[in-house]
Amino acid sequence: MTSHVDESGSQPTPTLGATRIRSSVFRNKVTSAAQAVEFIHPHDTVAISGFASAGTPKAIIPALADRIHAVRGAGSNFTINLLTGASVSAGTERLLAEVDGISLRMPYQSEPTARRSINTGRMDYVDIHLSHVAQQVWEGYYGNVDVAVVEVAGVTENGELIPSASIGNNKTWLDVADKVILEVNSWVPEAMSGIHDVYYGTALPPYRKPIQITAVEDRIGQPTLRVDPNKVVAVVETDARDSASPLTPPDEISQAIAAHVLDFFEYEVSKGRLPADGLLPLQSGIGNVANAVLQGLDAGPHKGLTCFSEVIQDGMLHLIKHGTVRYASATSLALSEAGIDELVSNIDFYRKHIVLRPQEISNHPEIVRRLGIIAMNGMLEADIYGNVNSTHVMGTRIMNGIGGSGDFARNGYLSMFLSPSTAKGGAISSIVPMVPHVDHTEHDVQVLVTEQGLADLRGLSPRKRSRVVIDKCAHPDFRGMLLDYVDRAEHSPSSGHTPHLLGEALSFHQRFEETGTMRRN
Amino acid sequence: MTSHVDESGSQPTPTLGATRIRSSVFRNKVTSAAQAVEFIHPHDTVAISGFASAGTPKAIIPALADRIHAVRGAGSNFTINLLTGASVSAGTERLLAEVDGISLRMPYQSEPTARRSINTGRMDYVDIHLSHVAQQVWEGYYGNVDVAVVEVAGVTENGELIPSASIGNNKTWLDVADKVILEVNSWVPEAMSGIHDVYYGTALPPYRKPIQITAVEDRIGQPTLRVDPNKVVAVVETDARDSASPLTPPDEISQAIAAHVLDFFEYEVSKGRLPADGLLPLQSGIGNVANAVLQGLDAGPHKGLTCFSEVIQDGMLHLIKHGTVRYASATSLALSEAGIDELVSNIDFYRKHIVLRPQEISNHPEIVRRLGIIAMNGMLEADIYGNVNSTHVMGTRIMNGIGGSGDFARNGYLSMFLSPSTAKGGAISSIVPMVPHVDHTEHDVQVLVTEQGLADLRGLSPRKRSRVVIDKCAHPDFRGMLLDYVDRAEHSPSSGHTPHLLGEALSFHQRFEETGTMRRN
Repeated sequence: MTSHVDESGSQPTPTLGATRIRSSVFRNKVTSAAQAVEFIHPHDTVAISGFASAGTPKAIIPALADRIHAVRGAGSNFTINLLTGASVSAGTERLLAEVDGISLRMPYQSEPTARRSINTGRMDYVDIHLSHVAQQVWEGYYGNVDVAVVEVAGVTENGELIPSASIGNNKTWLDVADKVILEVNSWVPEAMSGIHDVYYGTALPPYRKPIQITAVEDRIGQPTLRVDPNKVVAVVETDARDSASPLTPPDEISQAIAAHVLDFFEYEVSKGRLPADGLLPLQSGIGNVANAVLQGLDAGPHKGLTCFSEVIQDGMLHLIKHGTVRYASATSLALSEAGIDELVSNIDFYRKHIVLRPQEISNHPEIVRRLGIIAMNGMLEADIYGNVNSTHVMGTRIMNGIGGSGDFARNGYLSMFLSPSTAKGGAISSIVPMVPHVDHTEHDVQVLVTEQGLADLRGLSPRKRSRVVIDKCAHPDFRGMLLDYVDRAEHSPSSGHTPHLLGEALSFHQRFEETGTMRRN
Repeated sequence: MTSHVDESGSQPTPTLGATRIRSSVFRNKVTSAAQAVEFIHPHDTVAISGFASAGTPKAIIPALADRIHAVRGAGSNFTINLLTGASVSAGTERLLAEVDGISLRMPYQSEPTARRSINTGRMDYVDIHLSHVAQQVWEGYYGNVDVAVVEVAGVTENGELIPSASIGNNKTWLDVADKVILEVNSWVPEAMSGIHDVYYGTALPPYRKPIQITAVEDRIGQPTLRVDPNKVVAVVETDARDSASPLTPPDEISQAIAAHVLDFFEYEVSKGRLPADGLLPLQSGIGNVANAVLQGLDAGPHKGLTCFSEVIQDGMLHLIKHGTVRYASATSLALSEAGIDELVSNIDFYRKHIVLRPQEISNHPEIVRRLGIIAMNGMLEADIYGNVNSTHVMGTRIMNGIGGSGDFARNGYLSMFLSPSTAKGGAISSIVPMVPHVDHTEHDVQVLVTEQGLADLRGLSPRKRSRVVIDKCAHPDFRGMLLDYVDRAEHSPSSGHTPHLLGEALSFHQRFEETGTMRRN
């Protein structure tokens, strides 16, 4: 295995960033990535920065993977427990998975090599709500955090840290870790400073206070992160850039899903259930469907909308520029190269319309409930009664993780789950009799949307829900099979409030595992 | 069908309570229950007071059941949609179910006749988180609320309402209903006035503000409920008493479960994860296991504990009297006759140690998260990966409902689910390969407890969880079957992060349905 470079291919160039470290205490700790990772030991719990494609340490993790690989080559074992904000840059996740360097991973991943290690049982994975990470680490569920590795945009004269393009759990990592390694990235535009709002008022119970945010744009913290300089064991300089894949234009299916969502908003406005002036703050997952919804909003009647979500992608910049979105709150700026260029070129403008917060605030149940978030998240599949599987293919193989979807779906004002009605070229129906893994229960799912239509489950009993879900959301090729199931389930003598035939409830999935399709031959 | 009496058997005696109505505006509206129910029409949505055994209207609902029965006898249909706080007194629930008077029921029930109607599909039932009820009704999910029927302890000179022994959703019902019928119950001790804290600061988004509760005992509202007198169409007087069944002394199984819980608290204190001084606020469901935990705490080292829960039962009064519990917050005083006598005899003392709140506050995600609640709830069954079924027997027949368990489990600090390891004389294992209905997902369940032991799932991947759950919680008679399942699932080529064999995942339940036992013959 050769030495790793960061994702964009550029080597760290330590000299370039020297002016970003304005505190001599920190300047005196500058070292190479290879030397810095000597502070990381086998079995350490290592907490790193990074949320989606933004803010992952770019020099230290490749150096750590090299070190693990070398130690392995010398016949010793070397694994760490890896804690992050959410997913980190795919290259970084892959490097550590390839050298089998992770024994336990928390709280989210979305990378194929890591996924394979998890599904084969070589890597332990704990898939938890993103709003729960900080409190669970503080409480000690994951033992001691030995090392934090955090990318920052700079260090001020008095030793405060200017965050980079994501905040995630960085505040918590810096607070709880025994040792801190900083990566000072001079590529991060200095002008981004001030876009962040780091709240230092959280605590463990019984010392918690109300978090005084009452609007998406409220700032209650400070623009910098704090760290005890005595804990900082190394500072590494880099100028490597973040980069998300550019979004592909929405396809027909995504556009159809988006159209149903937008119609629904207008319907809710007409019924007086959503404010005509600005709706309520929108949360949406990432990916093509979410992007199509945003594009649809951009073409629609609403101006001055707000978003309260985890990640800001390229599309959001356009919406802000057009005035469709007045303000967006997130914890990560996961932009493509073009998006980053747009942001940097107009940073004074965007700084007035964007705030980045720690994920314990961006996903906090208190704030999500108070602001009345409209939660729109993707799913793998839903069952006819409205239970949603977001994570496990065929009930056993993890895809990514629950991420923040539960934080928003449970505590938000309106909880919507979106998916194409089929997958794998039509072999898989996204509407099934019973999901073999539940991430969002019937109690938390109010609206299901596929390109076929929108099922409004609010106020409906399970027997009523099943008809609406099949009628509105199932692909026509699967409707007959689903109706046949529910008819027979309802007439079964053992049937109750939620009719099921236990011997057939998972038959769609069994058929797929056996024949490669959920369709009957 | 003969005329109904309230549960305690006493007839309403209108004259007795006259002095409780100190406003002449309201006194002028006094009428009989039979006349009052003339304001309730077929297809109306009727929202009534009541949470557990406390605070259900005692004269009007029996009169309504009579009316429905009479209209039916005359050949017309008469059903209502019934909204409550949670369960209401069993007699009341039964009366309406017996006359098939309910077309839609929300949000919780626990009564056999109603349960039968729901499971056979004659009654629609929407089973939602108790903290979501008020906002969903405000938002209009359940259409217009035509009539509120609310029991109160009295009406003040200026027309404010003194709540009775539960608050539940009464504030919301009085606010949203077109018409209000009050039942003024002179049996409710007048001295109870002042125990209530009704918060009038809630709103629909975007107008929500932080709820400024930072400790269990904080009072942020007023002792009375408000109502627009122009909406009050009738006032009915009664003196019928509440009464919960007395708690039976904990059996061996409950005591064993409680002992594991109490050991766990000490372990957590020793690890510095729970404050030695007062732990954190305790929430517990109702029933024998919860009662055993409380009794165990009473015999333990802790004094000055706090409880933040839904219901206060008899056991809590003892704990308060002994100083074990310093303060208890709830939305309902569901006491037996003896418990009520104890409360009333020492009301000045208990008023300093108990607060009753609306359920939108007692269960509010914001407060549950902030206070750091230790959530202890019962369950029907859990699977080896930590998913919990609280509601559906064999995945299809509803038992009661999710109630507030999700409010506390999701947003609390520590989430525990408790159950005996077997049911039906050992025919049912409470630990199964896959639960056929999920109310609490693997992401929300941290600790499982049976009389066999306690499984601490925090920080464990699914493959590690399954071993701990089987080893600690499963009944020895079922351990072999469960281990055999998980072994084969882990070695299946299609297996992943959460190993399952789809063809066998529900086999325990199928066997029970076919043979009457989960055991192999």
